[in-house]
Amino acid sequence: MRQVTAPAVRWQGAHASPTEEELVAEEPLEVRGAPPVGSDASSGDAPTPDATIAVIMRTPGHDEELALGFLFGEGLLFGGDEIAAVRAGADADGLPSPNIVEVVTARGVDLARRAQDAGYSRQFAVNASCGVCGKNSVAAACASLPPLPFDDFAVAPTTLYGLPDRLRAEQRVFSYTGGLHGAALFDARGELLAMREDIGRHNAVDKLIGRALLDGALPLRDRVLLVSGRLSFEIILKALAAGIPIVAAVSAPSSLAVDLADAGGVTLAAFLRGDHVNVYTHPQRIRE
Amino acid sequence: MRQVTAPAVRWQGAHASPTEEELVAEEPLEVRGAPPVGSDASSGDAPTPDATIAVIMRTPGHDEELALGFLFGEGLLFGGDEIAAVRAGADADGLPSPNIVEVVTARGVDLARRAQDAGYSRQFAVNASCGVCGKNSVAAACASLPPLPFDDFAVAPTTLYGLPDRLRAEQRVFSYTGGLHGAALFDARGELLAMREDIGRHNAVDKLIGRALLDGALPLRDRVLLVSGRLSFEIILKALAAGIPIVAAVSAPSSLAVDLADAGGVTLAAFLRGDHVNVYTHPQRIRE
Repeated sequence: MRQVTAPAVRWQGAHASPTEEELVAEEPLEVRGAPPVGSDASSGDAPTPDATIAVIMRTPGHDEELALGFLFGEGLLFGGDEIAAVRAGADADGLPSPNIVEVVTARGVDLARRAQDAGYSRQFAVNASCGVCGKNSVAAACASLPPLPFDDFAVAPTTLYGLPDRLRAEQRVFSYTGGLHGAALFDARGELLAMREDIGRHNAVDKLIGRALLDGALPLRDRVLLVSGRLSFEIILKALAAGIPIVAAVSAPSSLAVDLADAGGVTLAAFLRGDHVNVYTHPQRIRE
Repeated sequence: MRQVTAPAVRWQGAHASPTEEELVAEEPLEVRGAPPVGSDASSGDAPTPDATIAVIMRTPGHDEELALGFLFGEGLLFGGDEIAAVRAGADADGLPSPNIVEVVTARGVDLARRAQDAGYSRQFAVNASCGVCGKNSVAAACASLPPLPFDDFAVAPTTLYGLPDRLRAEQRVFSYTGGLHGAALFDARGELLAMREDIGRHNAVDKLIGRALLDGALPLRDRVLLVSGRLSFEIILKALAAGIPIVAAVSAPSSLAVDLADAGGVTLAAFLRGDHVNVYTHPQRIRE
């Protein structure tokens, strides 16, 4: 359900004609935390009942991955062992809804309480503990995450050059309208391991990381993340949380993305086009 | 401060060289609500003290407009008469910070309480009262806003065709890196009245609407809004709140954007390129 159609009037010069146009699907996804089955609500430490954690605007598809990747990136979920089940939640009529994902947690894990304890009233996925961090104190204020270690992981520039074509080829296979952001994970030899799409740039990355979380593959210490558009602060924050050492983009990075990559030990490569690329931070991971 | 530079390594084929690259600036902006001067905290109805309403990732510039446009779009502020002052807020050292905007409200207006009453723990600017609205119930569930009335306001298709060039010309004047989303307001004859830019698509629109709010110009009943990229649900929601009857985009609309424009009485025109455009909803406002 990536695509829907809608009637439209097509103006060409001074001439109007009716047409049917394809649209990228966009719908809200509610992410709920549910207490584990058999929780003893009569105990002193009763779990918070089924609660809405977030509502995310997204392109439907890989919704469970999106929910988990989102929770992981937000620091509300730390690993696959904290999850008992992921399923469609019930709507007001008690029927399973395609727009609700319910994350049933393992005993002792209370998503709603974590969200509450974190003062979780954030806008735009900016960590509340971040507040208004000065440009140069990004690392200290925003990244409660430790910086990535430096090991031998590296990728050749010629390998990087081949990645955008592979991402585009994979997007051609899966998408119809071409209006979606793509994100993909590659290994050091440039092999595409997973690709996800969404109308929201961050969602495509959350879907990839949610998949890795389900697969028990985190942290992604020997992977390259490529995104089809620009690199914002949040993409780097998500990569850092998932332990991805190299993040590349076809288009420009933002200033804060560069600052956070620098502080977090992430190699940021951007303007990856044809046979050139700019490496803004930790260039030692890009070498022949 | 739209632009900063950063050192980078530029790979071209197998050759690496040091370079200095321009970056689009991205920094967090904290929006605070402050009680009016002289509020009587000893009364039974004490105002909520200075409180953080939201943290927005944005490109610095027109920050007061952004804060006001954001609050208006969120339904937390209803008009210019509710505002006593807009100023830089103080950081932890008590000094005015360029990354904090404090909105001092008129007597009786308590932003923090409004945010609290609205159950304001939203992600991604999706209204909490919206929840997981079905695709076809967008109007009822999401738009607590009344649909726009239909009057005689209309724009000729040939006028629409000229708008993207005017937006781009204005962006060339103001931007350096070209990596920013642009949004502009036009009148029915295609004259550009205001243009704002930001790394965030929604922020550029919030800045425009915040300006109109400061100018007492809302609702914008005889204006066309043009955005440089895609049209998402949120852009239409913001336009609807501001009363803008025609919203146009150079690129594609999302399905939910079309649904909301349809329900809200907004004319949605997209793929505005060269001498053609697709009009998805309420085409009667586009006519020769």
